[in-house]
Parts: sequence; structure tokens; C-alpha cells
Amino acid sequence: MVTQLVLVRHGESTANRDNEFTGWTDVPLTLKGRQQAKKVGDILANHQLLFDDVHTSYLQRAITTANIILLEMNQSWLPVHKTWRLNERHYGALRGLNKDAARLKYGVDAVALWRRSYTAVPPLLGKTVTDRRYPDSIEPHGESLQMASERLLPYWSTEILPGLKAGRNQLIVAHGSTLRALIKYLEAIADDDIDGLEIGNGEPICYTFNDQLQLGDRQYLR
Amino acid sequence: MVTQLVLVRHGESTANRDNEFTGWTDVPLTLKGRQQAKKVGDILANHQLLFDDVHTSYLQRAITTANIILLEMNQSWLPVHKTWRLNERHYGALRGLNKDAARLKYGVDAVALWRRSYTAVPPLLGKTVTDRRYPDSIEPHGESLQMASERLLPYWSTEILPGLKAGRNQLIVAHGSTLRALIKYLEAIADDDIDGLEIGNGEPICYTFNDQLQLGDRQYLR
Repeated sequence: MVTQLVLVRHGESTANRDNEFTGWTDVPLTLKGRQQAKKVGDILANHQLLFDDVHTSYLQRAITTANIILLEMNQSWLPVHKTWRLNERHYGALRGLNKDAARLKYGVDAVALWRRSYTAVPPLLGKTVTDRRYPDSIEPHGESLQMASERLLPYWSTEILPGLKAGRNQLIVAHGSTLRALIKYLEAIADDDIDGLEIGNGEPICYTFNDQLQLGDRQYLR
Repeated sequence: MVTQLVLVRHGESTANRDNEFTGWTDVPLTLKGRQQAKKVGDILANHQLLFDDVHTSYLQRAITTANIILLEMNQSWLPVHKTWRLNERHYGALRGLNKDAARLKYGVDAVALWRRSYTAVPPLLGKTVTDRRYPDSIEPHGESLQMASERLLPYWSTEILPGLKAGRNQLIVAHGSTLRALIKYLEAIADDDIDGLEIGNGEPICYTFNDQLQLGDRQYLR
């Protein structure tokens, strides 16, 4: 028996389009982003994937991408589990800032480090707004990729892995950084090698697990 | 403390547009149906409703309506619970049939009875397709409104009522017949009086519950 895990980054958001740091800011998809999501649904349907569970974040760009994919696959009825643990890495004070503006303000090297290093923490954001979806105890003020990984992996272990063990195909629709963190964990990529991994909007990645839960190669579905 | 329950029938489906019996057939929304859903989202947002749980059926016309409403209200992150128990009443052998064609085939009186009586069962459908979302044990071959009510109410009691008791606002996005059955139950409408109740696509209905769980009047939100 082979069980499938598919990872999808959300379609293009308005912040992607405008080249801004986003993090936990809840921006919508662009029209292009909706079209990318629909295309992912077509690709997964052409591969005849039948999912059992869907996991996504608390952010609408991921949730709407998941909803569009499921509608396209005629699998809207599946349970969609939403969690802040799959949210994008929190970009701290960088959020909402254009990436070029950030380079001018903080320097090219600092921004490159915050974007690509595993452990660098961006400048922290003071708590400014309250949002009922995030109790004070869970909303961070800025995260390194490692910090995002540490709050993501408990969800993987308790909510996704048991499904795979039970032979249930899992779809995760999330964000660039949280998917990088998950792939780093699954493939045991070294901290220093993670900066080369870039996940495009709407490019589905599939892993298979055999019945000993051994992981197959990373496959890009087309 | 006042807790709110909002009932929404899905937006116009292709079968509504074509004046067909639908039941468990999984037809999509029309463009008009999507616009109706968006308008419901606007109405609920203008009333500043904050939901805690959302319930819908296994049918895409209800699920997509719920997703559009939540996106419009910026509440996409809420849990959306999907259940076959909120599915439209199963219309048996009438499903897919144009309502005028059904009147020609079966007679005006018979069709009126199947549509509006509480206990009349439509001609049964032989099992023809398998659908992994419905094990054999749950998919009916045709239901009276009463039969639909009987499989709906256990879900009400175990999944929705406890939320109201806990002060959590509940949104139900479902179908004409299952919402009629629920309103009949909530307002203790007699079997013979239910034929007058018609719920339009995309017209939200709100009930309030006080802290003794006493039900307020049915309100149409605009």
C-alpha cells in the first residue's frame, strides 16, 4: 500500500504581487493566484489523487487556495483542518514592507540573512492589534525559520502523520516558509543547505510513503 | 448573554436555474448563486456577526456558499464542519428531473404532495452509483421531509446545540428542505402547516437564544 502526501503553496497573493513581506498578515489571492489554484486542482485531478484529509493555515490565501483545489477536484466535501501552526513564518517588523524598501532600510546582507538563514530572527514587531483567532499566548512577534519549524512539527506529528500511518492520503496547502521547514524535516536537509530550496506558488509536490512509512523522492507534479 | 444562530440556504445552483429536482446530486452554483453568497456575506458582515462554528452539508453548492460567505466576512479561518446529515432531502427517482416534466409524468397532485407534504415519500431510486463519501449504510434512495428531519436532528443535538449552550454563535449553510425541517423543529410548526414555509436562495435567517436557551423570533436579515 502506498500513501500520498501532497504539499501546495498558496497561489499568488497581493503581497507576492507587490513584492512585500507578509507573514501573518491576512492578504487575499490575486486573480492570477486563483487561476494558479485552479490549475493545481486540474493537475491533482489528472493524477487521479483521492485525498482523505486536508490541512491548511488560518490565513485566507492558503484556505482559499485549498477550497479552489477541492472544488476543481470535486472533493469539496473532505474535512479541511485549519491551524495557526501551518501559518507562514511570522516576519516581525518586516511584515507589510516592500522587499526593496527593506533592503534600503536594513541593508542587503541583513535582509538576505533573515530570508534565507535557518536561525536568523527578523526585527520583532510590537503587539499592535488583537485578533480573536490568535490568543496572546500563541501570536509570535517574529520568527526564524527554525522557530516556525518548532511550532509546526507538533501538528505534523499529532494530526498528519497518524493519517498517513492509517493509509489516508493527506493534502497540505500552506506557505513558502512552513513548507520549506516541513521539507527540511522530511528530507533531513542540513541547516546550511535549506537556503537553496524555493517553492513556487501553485506547484504541487508529492511524496509517497510505503507501508513501513518510508519516504519516496520529492516529485513535482505537472 | 445572547447567542446567535444563522441559517442560510445555498445560492442558486444550476439545477435551481433549470427548475430540476436535485436532492443529493452534487451540482455547482451558477454565477448568480456566487453573487448571492457574496451578498449574504456582506449582510452578515454589516450586522457585525462573529461566528464560532460553521456547519454545512457534503454538497458543493452549500460548501461553496459557506466558503464565499466566510471570505467576504474575513472569517475564513473558522472551522467548517461538513456532514451528510445536512444534505438536501433525497428526492429519489425525481432527482435530475425537470419539475414540469415530473408533473407530466406523475401528475400535478402527486408532485405537489411529494414537494410539500411532511410525510410523502417520492418514488425511490435504485442504487446506481457508488460515491466514497457515502457508505451504503447511509445513502437513502428517497426521503420524505420527515425522514430528512430524522437524520438531521441527531446532528443538531450533538454538534450544534452544545455550541449554542456554550455561547458560541453558529452558522448553518444548507438546503431548502433541511432548513425547513430544522425551522419546523425549532418553532414547533405542525406537520400540516409546513407547506407554507419557503426559504429563498441566499436569504439569511437569524435566531437569538438567551442564556436559558429560549428561542427568539425568526428574523430575516437584510
